[in-house]
Amino acid sequence: MTETIGFIGLGNMGSPMAINLLKAGYNMRVYNRDLSKTQTLVDAGAKRGVRPSDVVEHGGIVITMLANDEALEAVTLGIDGILTHLSPGGIHISMSTVSPDLARKMQKLHEQQGCHYVAAPVFGRPEAAAARQLWIAEAGHPEAKKRVRPILDALGQGIFDFGEEAANANVVKISGNFLLASAMEAMGEAFTLGEKNGVERTKMYELFTQTLFACPAYKSYGKRIAEKNFEPVGFTMQLALKDINLVLDSAKEVVSPMPLASHLSNRLLSGIARGRSDRDWSELSRGVLDDAGIE
Amino acid sequence: MTETIGFIGLGNMGSPMAINLLKAGYNMRVYNRDLSKTQTLVDAGAKRGVRPSDVVEHGGIVITMLANDEALEAVTLGIDGILTHLSPGGIHISMSTVSPDLARKMQKLHEQQGCHYVAAPVFGRPEAAAARQLWIAEAGHPEAKKRVRPILDALGQGIFDFGEEAANANVVKISGNFLLASAMEAMGEAFTLGEKNGVERTKMYELFTQTLFACPAYKSYGKRIAEKNFEPVGFTMQLALKDINLVLDSAKEVVSPMPLASHLSNRLLSGIARGRSDRDWSELSRGVLDDAGIE
Repeated sequence: MTETIGFIGLGNMGSPMAINLLKAGYNMRVYNRDLSKTQTLVDAGAKRGVRPSDVVEHGGIVITMLANDEALEAVTLGIDGILTHLSPGGIHISMSTVSPDLARKMQKLHEQQGCHYVAAPVFGRPEAAAARQLWIAEAGHPEAKKRVRPILDALGQGIFDFGEEAANANVVKISGNFLLASAMEAMGEAFTLGEKNGVERTKMYELFTQTLFACPAYKSYGKRIAEKNFEPVGFTMQLALKDINLVLDSAKEVVSPMPLASHLSNRLLSGIARGRSDRDWSELSRGVLDDAGIE
Repeated sequence: MTETIGFIGLGNMGSPMAINLLKAGYNMRVYNRDLSKTQTLVDAGAKRGVRPSDVVEHGGIVITMLANDEALEAVTLGIDGILTHLSPGGIHISMSTVSPDLARKMQKLHEQQGCHYVAAPVFGRPEAAAARQLWIAEAGHPEAKKRVRPILDALGQGIFDFGEEAANANVVKISGNFLLASAMEAMGEAFTLGEKNGVERTKMYELFTQTLFACPAYKSYGKRIAEKNFEPVGFTMQLALKDINLVLDSAKEVVSPMPLASHLSNRLLSGIARGRSDRDWSELSRGVLDDAGIE
């Protein structure tokens, strides 16, 4: 029998992911706070719920793909939330980028209710989500991971396992976003040094991304930064700031200074102060241009 | 007729490079301040000079691979130096990592003497030099670049041209070392955040270097940083500090703030203060561990 999946959070990542699960043959119930965003999925064959609990069944599987800790807490712990409707035996696959702290709390609460919480945050932009090219970091109870494996396989190109502690997958996820933002800052500084010395930014980009840094992170973000063209928006400055602050919160909690993360937080904050809140996060590199007095 | 090449500077990069030119069939004269380092090359068929000028002929080609600006100035401008013996028509291929400022000065002085200065700094560790796997950024007079092309081809796997201004190649080179050091700092911070949260450093390394950061820079340095094993030494902390300070000098000159480069300078300085001057530069990431109170 095909599993029926509940899917909560149909933003620019969640929506193509849910579409892919429908295409893979899963029955689906969907919920989104802004109900209008469910229409594409309903047209494609999903059933719409008007409360989070509407898409959850006892012993079933529910996926959440939400913007932040607050949203995950609201749909999970509220009176019409996931948790009370999922038990016994259900699994909550939490794919949002949330704090390791909340993942710890969530895993505990789910286990107390006799169900499982699997953290499975993803790497990849909306285009990658649509193309089933996401990379997934997963962590949680072994039996639960086994049951959800076909679902994750239908969403991504590779799954990396980080053990039983759900929070571990979230630590890895926010660390990855930190590495990406660090690479953007570094390229922004390097290309601008080149530009002010009379070297073409795109020529530098070509050398580096064909040699030492021939990898997706530098190729995709580096192109934007070299060309100073930050369209289309895949992941906003605002969300990037949220993630870097999750990194800094975790760093404080485990007592591990991260000077580069602190700098990135200020860099993003300054971009937001200049009205770039909803621009792509690669535009954090414009802060380097601002500092250098050029466009 | 085969060119006779003068080669000055037989350190752990210059020595394997000179060997490769001998293997490629070039006649060779070599000079090194510490004469004992010339023995390997002499055994392989090179002639030894006791002064820089001994390895230079009018209209010929001389390669320098030296530690810093001071060494390049000494062998080029001194009384027994390269410059007066190279004209007319000779070419000085300068492969050291030196300041853009010195490259500008050198190019001008060589042109005034009727010869050419081609900047051709390299990316790659000593193993890469031995395996002819260097990447080379070149800049200088078009005719001169044309003449030296077969020589550069015998040393590397790829050549990237940055126009006629020699200094441009040096800007690119020091920017590349800045990008590498930035990536090391970022990985150091990320892996240490993971470790203090209970995530294995090497597991994080595996995910990142098989996905977003699947490139030589992250794979090679990331492995050292994840495993905290910084042997063997390829490029020292001391030399890395020199290069980051070249970046900061150039940044000041063109008025382009580089906060990450400033941080890296302090990070390297602190490593040196802790006695790591001659250790591999990837050990700059140990500063993150020190800061976090772990080994």
